[in-house]
Amino acid sequence: MKKITYFLLFILAWHMGAQQKELSLKDAVLGYYKGLYPKTLRNMQWLKNTDDFLYNDGQQILIKNVDNQVVKKIDLTQIAQGLKDLNRLPYIETATDQDLVFTQGNAKILYDYNTGQTTRINYPEKAQNFDYNPTHKYLAYTIDNNLYLANLDTAQIPVAVFDNKNIVSGQAIARSEFGITKGTFWSPKADKLAFYQKDETNVDDYPLVDITVTPAKLHNIKYPMNGRGSEEPGVGVYDLSAKKTVYLKLFSRAGKEHYATNLTWGPQEKYIYLAEVNRDQDHMWFNQYNAETGDFVKTLFEEKNDKWVEPEHPAFFIPNGKNQFIWLSERDGFMNLYKYNTDGKLIKQLTHNHWVTNDVLGFSKKGKYAFIEGTGKDPRDKKLFKVNMRNGKMTTLTPQSGQHRILMNDAKTLYLDNFSNVDTPRIIYLQDVARKLNTVLLKADNPVKDYNVNPKPEMFSLTGEYGDKIYARLFKPLDFDSAKKYPVLVYVYGGPHAQMNTSSWMGGAPLWMPWLAAQGYLVFTVDGHGSDNRGFAFESVIHRHLGRIEMKDQLHGVDYLKSLPYVDTKRLAVHGWSFGGFMTSSLMTTYPDVFTTGVAGGPVTDWKWYEVMYGERYMDRYQQNPEGFKETSVLNKIQNLKGHLMTIHGYQDDVVVPQHDIALHREAIKKGIQMDFYLYPTAKHNVRGIDRVHLMTKVLNYIMQYNK
Amino acid sequence: MKKITYFLLFILAWHMGAQQKELSLKDAVLGYYKGLYPKTLRNMQWLKNTDDFLYNDGQQILIKNVDNQVVKKIDLTQIAQGLKDLNRLPYIETATDQDLVFTQGNAKILYDYNTGQTTRINYPEKAQNFDYNPTHKYLAYTIDNNLYLANLDTAQIPVAVFDNKNIVSGQAIARSEFGITKGTFWSPKADKLAFYQKDETNVDDYPLVDITVTPAKLHNIKYPMNGRGSEEPGVGVYDLSAKKTVYLKLFSRAGKEHYATNLTWGPQEKYIYLAEVNRDQDHMWFNQYNAETGDFVKTLFEEKNDKWVEPEHPAFFIPNGKNQFIWLSERDGFMNLYKYNTDGKLIKQLTHNHWVTNDVLGFSKKGKYAFIEGTGKDPRDKKLFKVNMRNGKMTTLTPQSGQHRILMNDAKTLYLDNFSNVDTPRIIYLQDVARKLNTVLLKADNPVKDYNVNPKPEMFSLTGEYGDKIYARLFKPLDFDSAKKYPVLVYVYGGPHAQMNTSSWMGGAPLWMPWLAAQGYLVFTVDGHGSDNRGFAFESVIHRHLGRIEMKDQLHGVDYLKSLPYVDTKRLAVHGWSFGGFMTSSLMTTYPDVFTTGVAGGPVTDWKWYEVMYGERYMDRYQQNPEGFKETSVLNKIQNLKGHLMTIHGYQDDVVVPQHDIALHREAIKKGIQMDFYLYPTAKHNVRGIDRVHLMTKVLNYIMQYNK
Repeated sequence: MKKITYFLLFILAWHMGAQQKELSLKDAVLGYYKGLYPKTLRNMQWLKNTDDFLYNDGQQILIKNVDNQVVKKIDLTQIAQGLKDLNRLPYIETATDQDLVFTQGNAKILYDYNTGQTTRINYPEKAQNFDYNPTHKYLAYTIDNNLYLANLDTAQIPVAVFDNKNIVSGQAIARSEFGITKGTFWSPKADKLAFYQKDETNVDDYPLVDITVTPAKLHNIKYPMNGRGSEEPGVGVYDLSAKKTVYLKLFSRAGKEHYATNLTWGPQEKYIYLAEVNRDQDHMWFNQYNAETGDFVKTLFEEKNDKWVEPEHPAFFIPNGKNQFIWLSERDGFMNLYKYNTDGKLIKQLTHNHWVTNDVLGFSKKGKYAFIEGTGKDPRDKKLFKVNMRNGKMTTLTPQSGQHRILMNDAKTLYLDNFSNVDTPRIIYLQDVARKLNTVLLKADNPVKDYNVNPKPEMFSLTGEYGDKIYARLFKPLDFDSAKKYPVLVYVYGGPHAQMNTSSWMGGAPLWMPWLAAQGYLVFTVDGHGSDNRGFAFESVIHRHLGRIEMKDQLHGVDYLKSLPYVDTKRLAVHGWSFGGFMTSSLMTTYPDVFTTGVAGGPVTDWKWYEVMYGERYMDRYQQNPEGFKETSVLNKIQNLKGHLMTIHGYQDDVVVPQHDIALHREAIKKGIQMDFYLYPTAKHNVRGIDRVHLMTKVLNYIMQYNK
Repeated sequence: MKKITYFLLFILAWHMGAQQKELSLKDAVLGYYKGLYPKTLRNMQWLKNTDDFLYNDGQQILIKNVDNQVVKKIDLTQIAQGLKDLNRLPYIETATDQDLVFTQGNAKILYDYNTGQTTRINYPEKAQNFDYNPTHKYLAYTIDNNLYLANLDTAQIPVAVFDNKNIVSGQAIARSEFGITKGTFWSPKADKLAFYQKDETNVDDYPLVDITVTPAKLHNIKYPMNGRGSEEPGVGVYDLSAKKTVYLKLFSRAGKEHYATNLTWGPQEKYIYLAEVNRDQDHMWFNQYNAETGDFVKTLFEEKNDKWVEPEHPAFFIPNGKNQFIWLSERDGFMNLYKYNTDGKLIKQLTHNHWVTNDVLGFSKKGKYAFIEGTGKDPRDKKLFKVNMRNGKMTTLTPQSGQHRILMNDAKTLYLDNFSNVDTPRIIYLQDVARKLNTVLLKADNPVKDYNVNPKPEMFSLTGEYGDKIYARLFKPLDFDSAKKYPVLVYVYGGPHAQMNTSSWMGGAPLWMPWLAAQGYLVFTVDGHGSDNRGFAFESVIHRHLGRIEMKDQLHGVDYLKSLPYVDTKRLAVHGWSFGGFMTSSLMTTYPDVFTTGVAGGPVTDWKWYEVMYGERYMDRYQQNPEGFKETSVLNKIQNLKGHLMTIHGYQDDVVVPQHDIALHREAIKKGIQMDFYLYPTAKHNVRGIDRVHLMTKVLNYIMQYNK
C-alpha cells in the first residue's frame, strides 16, 4: 500500500508541477519586474498636436498612426549613450511632432526623430522637479529650495532664489493635498512660468536620523504638525521676455496660513485663478489675479461646508471664446460639473450625477463637448464620458464594466483605452470618440496562469454602517474547498482618498494576496465609509473622529466572514499600512476580541502627530477637538490589547513620522503591554524594492505564526 | 482512579502552595524593592574622623559606637521637610563628627546632630555633579558645561565658566575610563579644588531623538567615535583664598587627544600628579605638576605595553613623611603594589601576587601598613589584606571565602565587613584590624526561602581556551531531576572589566535567573578570557579581535553543557547585553548551529561605531586594524544567521548608540535575513525600573517561545 501511496503522490506532484508552478512570495512581491502582472505597452503616449502615438516595444520606440501602422522605429540604443540594458531604455518624457525628450546623465536629451539630431539642455546634478515645455524648449527645475530655468542656449536663469532655506519655490506646496502635484505651471503659450512658493519659517523641524553614514547623521525635515505653525503659500510669475518675477498679492481674508490651490492659467495668460481655502478648510474663495501686476482682481465665487471644502481640480476653460470654464464641485454631494464664466456667474450645473467625476480630460474643438472620467454608477469602475456643454447630456464612451485608463490626443478626437476588469488582465484599444475604430493594440494574457494562485477575487457588496452599501473583495485559493475551514487575513486601508476594491485585474489587489490565499488563507478587504469614489456624505461621516465609523464597517465585514461556513472564525488577522496601520492598531485595541493578530505598518497612532493639511481637514486642530483626539488615539487604548500586534515603520518616514510608532511602544511599555516592532532603516513611508520582499515576508510570517 | 489522581494533585498543590509561593517574573526583576534580595543596613557609613558609624534602620538614622551601642537616634522625618514616605528617607551623603548632610529640594541640608540646627547650601535647579567638602563647608557643582562653588554664606562662585559649550569643566572626562568617576578633586586641606576639563570641539555630534515631546526633538550628544576626532583634556585648579583658577600646562609628548588620568593631590597641596596616556594607550607617563603655577615639573616614571597600558588607580601617598606613595601596576602581569618616592625612584615592588589587587583603602597611622582589597587566590573572592610597607608581607584579614565589601574608618583601625557568599545571603560585621571585635551587626536570612526558586547556583570551573581555568555558574530548578532533559539559557557578557560569576549570594546573578530555572530551565554563565580579576595576560588576549577568543570560551562552556546527561542539547539559547549583546549576535552568526535563539541587548555590532577610549584600547583605531574590524563586525556575518535573533536597544543609548543596532538590521534586510527587533524609547544603555519588567518579559518570552 505504501508503494501505491508514493506513486499517487508522485503523479500528483508531477501533475501539479506540470500545471502549476509554485509562486514564491518574492516573485509575488516583485511581480511587476517578473512579468507576473499583465503585459502592457510601456511608455505609451500621444505625440503632442498629432494623431500619432508611441510606445516602447522593449527594443525600440515605435511611433504609430491612427491606422496602427508604424510610422517610425527609433532605436534608442543608438541615441542614448552607453546603454547596456534594454530593460532600462530611457523613458520618453515628452513627445512632440518633432522631438522625443528623455533624461540621460544631467541633461534632457531632445532627439529630433526627423533629422536624427540630438540637442541637450544641461542642468546641475542636484536639480529636481523638472518641468519641460516644448514650445520654447525651456526646462524649469529646482535646486534645493530655489527655482531655475534653462534652455538649449542660455546658462541657468535664476527665477526664484533665496538664501533663506525656509522660502521654497517651484515645488508642490500644502504637502500635495488639494490635488497639488507640482510647483510649476507654464502659461498656455509658454511665455510665462507661474510657480508655487511656501514660507516654512513657522513650521517645526522633525528630526530623522540617517544611519547609513558614520556617525549617524541628523536629517531635519520641515513637518507642520497638527495645530502648530504651518506654511504660508505664495505664487510667483516669471516672464520670459521681461526676465522678471512678480508675486501675486494673495488674498488676506483666508489668513496667512491658508491654502492656495489648483492654480489655473486663464487662456490668454493675463489672469491666474486660485481656489484659496482657509486653514480651517471650511471656506473656499475662487479668486482671480492679474498675472502681470500680481494684483488681486476679484473673488468669482465661494464655497463653504461645516465639515470641509476640498477643491481638487483646476478650472477647465472651455474653448468657446466666451470666458467660460468648468468647475468641479462636491457641493451637491457628488463631484459634478458647473459651468461658470469669468465674471463669477454660475451659468449652469451641467451634471447631476449621483456618482463621482474624477477628471476633465478636455474639450472637443469648439467646446461643444467635454470629455470626463468618472465612475459611472458602479463606483469601482472608471469610465470615459462625453458631456454636452450646453445641456449636460452625457454619453458613455466606454460602457464595459471595468477600469478604463484613458489617454486622449490633443484634439480630443482619439483615445487610448487601457482597460482591465476582474476577468480581463488588460486590453489596450485605440479608439475614436465616435467609437468606430475599435483597434486592439494589445491583449494581455493571464500572467499567472501557470502558477498555483487564483488571481480572480470574488467581488461583492455588503451592508455597512447606516445601511449603506460597502464593497468587498475576497481571495480564495485555487483549490478552495467549501467543506474546509480557512483562516482569514483582513487587509484594510479604510481612510479617505483611497479605494482598495476596483473592477480591475485582481480587483486592484497586489499579487501577494493570491499568494497568501495559495497558502490556505482567505484574504478579505472591504472599503468602508470614508473611502474614495462614493461622494461627500459617505466620505465625510468620518469627520472629527477618524476610525470610529471606519471600524464599524470593518466589523460588518467581519460579521459577513463569520457567516461563511468555510471561515475559521477564531483565526482572523488584520493588516494595513498608513491609515490602514491606524485602523489595524485601532481595531486590535478597540475590539480586542475580534482578531488574533495584527500587523500595523506606518501607523498613525495619534492624530496630533500628523500633518496640518490632511489631518486638520478630517480632525480639526487638536485644540478644537480634544474629545476627538482623545477618542482616536491608539495610545489611550493600548492597554486593551489582547492579541499579537506588530507595528512596522520606515525609519525615514516623512509622512507618518516615526514618533507615532515609537511613542505607541513607549506607552505600551509604561502599561506593561507586550507588542512587536520592526523598522526599515532607510525606508520612507512605503517600503519599496527588494526591501519590500523582506517586509512582506515579515508581515505574512507574523500573521501565519500567530493567527491560530 | 481519576479521583485519586485529583486528590494527589490537590495535596501536591497544597503542599507546594504552603511551602513555596510562586515567584513572578515581575517580582524577580523588581526584587530589590520587593525584599527579595538579602536585607542590609541602608546608608551604612563611618562618621569622618571618628570611630562611630551610622545606618538607616528604616525609621531613623542610628549612630553607633565601636561597642555597637546607639549613641544617637535621629528622626529624619522631624528634619526633612514635608516627608511623606519613610521609604524615601533622605540618603546621608556625608557624615562628620558634627553634621549629617543630605539633599532636599535644591539644597544640601547640613544637620548638626549635636545642636539640632540645620543650615543649608542652596544651588540652582539644574546643578549636577555635587562634591561637598566638610572642611570649609564648600559645595562644588556643575551647571551644563560649567563649574561653580557655593557655601553657607556666599552666592554662587564661578570656577570655570565658558560660553563655548564644547569646553566642559568639573565632570568626568575620557568617558569614565581609566578609573575616572568624577571631575572635581578637593585638595587634602580643602583649600583648593582641582577639576577636569575637556574640549569637545573635535568630537562628533550623535543625534538621539526624544519622542516624549511634540514634535519629537533632537538631542545631540557628543560622541567620540573610533578613529575620529576626540576630546582634549585639561586640568584646572581653583584657589579658594586667591579666588582664581590656574590651568596645568599639560604634557605635550602624549599628544593633544591624550588621557589625563587618576588625578592625585600631593599631601601638601603643592603638587598634582597625573597618569597621562597617549591616545594609542600603549604609553603612560606619571607626571608631576606645580599646583600653584600649573607648570609641568617632571615625569616620575613611564610604563609601556604593546597591547595597552591602563592606569586605573591614583597614587596613594604613604603617611610616613618620606614623600613616598604606592603605585598600582599590572606591569608584572597582575595588579601589584610598587613603592615609589616623588623623585620617581622605585623603592620596592611590595607585592608579587598572582592575583589582582582591586584597591588601596588606606594606611595605618604612620604608614607601617597598607590595607588593600583584592581577590586573593580565588578570583571570585573579594578580601581585605594588610600589607607591611617595609617588606610587603601580607596578612589576610577576611579569610572566609566570599565577597567582603569593606568600609574602613578614617584611622584605619576598624572596618565594616559586608559579607556574602553562595551559602550566605549577607552578614555585616563590625571588626577591628586585630580581628578581636567580631561583632555581628546583621545576619540576613535567605530572602526567597518561601518561593519556588533555588537561589544557590552551582559554581565550578572549566578548562577554557589555552588550557586556562574559566569559571562557570549554573542555576537549576529547585525540583531538578537529573533524569529529565532541560533546555539551557547561556547568559553571556564576555568582555573586559566585568566578572559575572562571583562568590557572593546567588553567585552574583540577578533573581530572574533562578526564576527562569523555576520554569524548567538551566541558566548557565561562564566568564571567559577578557573578563575581570584574572590578570593582564588572561584579559589581553582579546586585543585587536574582540570576540574571537571570548566566543571560543563560550563554546567550551557549551561543550560542557553538552556533556551533561540532563541537558537538551538541541535547546540552547543565548542572551547578553552590551558586550554581551555583541557576543550574542556574534555567536549566532559565527557559530550558527549552536544556539536556536538569541537575544542581544544594546549590542555593539561594529566596533567602528563604538567610542574612542574603551574601543581603541581593545581594537585600536579602525585605520590601524582593518582586518580586526572586518572580522569582528556582525554586519559581515549576518547572512550566516540560522536561528531566531532579536536585538533590543535603548533609543536614548549614549554608550552603544542606536546606529549599531539599526545598521545591523539594515544589513539583514539587504541580505534578506529575518530578525526581530525591539526598542525602549526612553531607555539609555540599560533599561531600568518598571521598563525592565517589560524588557525581561520580552527577552524570556522570546527565548521560551523559540528555544525548542
